[in-house]
Amino acid sequence: MSTARNPETLAWAYVSTVVQGPSRAVEQLIASRGVVDAAATMRTGDVPKAVWDRVSARAHLDTAAAGLDLMAAMDGRLVVPSDEEWPAWRFLGFERPDGALPTRDGGAPLALWVVGPAPVAPSTERAVAVVGTRAATSYGEHVTGEIAGDLAVDGWTVVSGGAYGIDGAAHRAALGVGGCTVAVLACGVDRAYPAGHERLLRRVSETGAVVSEYPPGTPPARYRFLSRNRLVAALCDGVVVVEAGWRSGARNTASWARALGRPVMAVPGPVTSASSTGCHRMIREGEARLVTGARDVVAEAGAVGAGVEDDDDRDALFGRDLDRLPQTPARVLDAFPASGARTVQQLSVDSGVPVSAVRSALVVLEIEGHAGRDETGWVRVDKVR
Amino acid sequence: MSTARNPETLAWAYVSTVVQGPSRAVEQLIASRGVVDAAATMRTGDVPKAVWDRVSARAHLDTAAAGLDLMAAMDGRLVVPSDEEWPAWRFLGFERPDGALPTRDGGAPLALWVVGPAPVAPSTERAVAVVGTRAATSYGEHVTGEIAGDLAVDGWTVVSGGAYGIDGAAHRAALGVGGCTVAVLACGVDRAYPAGHERLLRRVSETGAVVSEYPPGTPPARYRFLSRNRLVAALCDGVVVVEAGWRSGARNTASWARALGRPVMAVPGPVTSASSTGCHRMIREGEARLVTGARDVVAEAGAVGAGVEDDDDRDALFGRDLDRLPQTPARVLDAFPASGARTVQQLSVDSGVPVSAVRSALVVLEIEGHAGRDETGWVRVDKVR
Repeated sequence: MSTARNPETLAWAYVSTVVQGPSRAVEQLIASRGVVDAAATMRTGDVPKAVWDRVSARAHLDTAAAGLDLMAAMDGRLVVPSDEEWPAWRFLGFERPDGALPTRDGGAPLALWVVGPAPVAPSTERAVAVVGTRAATSYGEHVTGEIAGDLAVDGWTVVSGGAYGIDGAAHRAALGVGGCTVAVLACGVDRAYPAGHERLLRRVSETGAVVSEYPPGTPPARYRFLSRNRLVAALCDGVVVVEAGWRSGARNTASWARALGRPVMAVPGPVTSASSTGCHRMIREGEARLVTGARDVVAEAGAVGAGVEDDDDRDALFGRDLDRLPQTPARVLDAFPASGARTVQQLSVDSGVPVSAVRSALVVLEIEGHAGRDETGWVRVDKVR
Repeated sequence: MSTARNPETLAWAYVSTVVQGPSRAVEQLIASRGVVDAAATMRTGDVPKAVWDRVSARAHLDTAAAGLDLMAAMDGRLVVPSDEEWPAWRFLGFERPDGALPTRDGGAPLALWVVGPAPVAPSTERAVAVVGTRAATSYGEHVTGEIAGDLAVDGWTVVSGGAYGIDGAAHRAALGVGGCTVAVLACGVDRAYPAGHERLLRRVSETGAVVSEYPPGTPPARYRFLSRNRLVAALCDGVVVVEAGWRSGARNTASWARALGRPVMAVPGPVTSASSTGCHRMIREGEARLVTGARDVVAEAGAVGAGVEDDDDRDALFGRDLDRLPQTPARVLDAFPASGARTVQQLSVDSGVPVSAVRSALVVLEIEGHAGRDETGWVRVDKVR
């Protein structure tokens, strides 16, 4: 039995449940009709073909209310783009207009199911992902503990995937020093997966956050792990791979990080250890920078702007001209008057972009030289094209 | 009591003894007067100031004949630039006209004292230096054994410095598989240094070569180790550092290798090991390429032309125009007629450059686009400036 609730929240829960993962087409439908209307039409099939192809198999599902009830029972919540804790900035890299990222799996999540006291946006504002093989050696677990522990002590949130091996060691190290850690799952947040990490994930949810873009009840599946990896890469300022076999899922996370402009780092190990071959390969191929400890990690990930500190990266992500600005910063830029200053709140109202996302967009616009601050607020500084 | 011998050899022995190391000024004196006359005038002081400043302290020494006697007793020899086994090609990098390498310590050796059956030039034609810390761990010694052993089996000569730790493991591994190994010492080849390697160095001298630019009796000294490192770097196609502390002599060898255009490689290890910090540092700073085994090493060092395979390296070493060609190739180029082909032997006679050095110089001239082969021999192909 579902408690009375906000029709928008129910609509988001329905959309998340029937879409299962990112969808540019669904995003566009919601942007144009609002989520309540979008959900209603998705149910009836009165939607563009691209949307229907994606949702038809699950459109009849009516588990949204039950999912929200379960969340409420777990003291969790559904976080949606209009929420203050929505980490809009974290997903800007997915808005690349050149389509370099795969549309089907590469978009921003539509919504996030979250259990835990840490609000997503603030807690991942300074975050490092520490990931690696499930087949970790004692060396790998030790080094993970050192790096993740030192980062957490230093105030960095440790993001990982909740898996056995390196992931688990990373979460444990952050918890061990009273730091913040976020586990991004490839299944519903109500599922303890892997089963042996039930207690660990509960501890993460008591002080940090357990996050998934899949609704409660969703079982893990291979494609969901790959999709989950993109969220791990998105929700941090850099990815550290501690141990990885030659073909490791951690390399997939690293690829996402590179696509998103996040620094990728790898910890070397004995060349006699199969569990380090993936790390050595990434370093050798120039895919990852060698790091030996938290200090090296901070040097890489600590640059302002989530890894977009150098011109090449910035160009790759955003391009050099206005036409190639990501959607959200472009919208915020459009909300500026031809002259005069605006506050973040005014820009939010004028652009329809949430305050937290406006703040993120302003960082981009400032880096790109389109906006700046004076004593009265934010001003547009570039020439109008 | 000295046996009767060639006055040229005696003169070279005298020069090597009183100069102790490289000297551009002495090289020039020998080039203009011949070694016998150069030696005679060095004895009397009737030489340019730059030469006298270098040799005055030792000019009175008369140990040359004794040194040659000792060499003969050890079944060794003094190898000089006119000898067929002189590895002229290996020292071309020292002839940089831009003076980027330090003059005092950075020149080609004047002569080499050698004990062992391996002729220097042919045996270092395909060679890799495997070097590292004296404070090697069992991991480092194990990996050194694997890499040096595999390289030696594959026909590569293993060059190293004869020191404890990684150097010793490299020599031993090559000997262990019946391969060729060359030890370059910072003292006279009659001195077993370190003392604990007396037996190992004897074994090296039985099948490979023990080499020094210092005359018999010379004790090791700190500056000689640094100078020795440049010869290790020169006598190979690439340098592999297996383990090195944060400030290791191996980094000095690596610097020489880079200056000479040789690939520098480093083997990673546990980040918890102090003996790998230098390797990690070099990889992280882009000073060395990460390698995990002999296969990676061959991929780096195996390129034709001793590491001068890419345009940037080649430009750095030789520059793009004739004025900046190293001395030996420039001399060989001058020996070409305006048209018509020449054999290697003819070029040697016309240029006064030994046959083996002509061959090396032709490789440079061919790479640089100044010379080529047709069915009748070598021809000059570029426009005369």
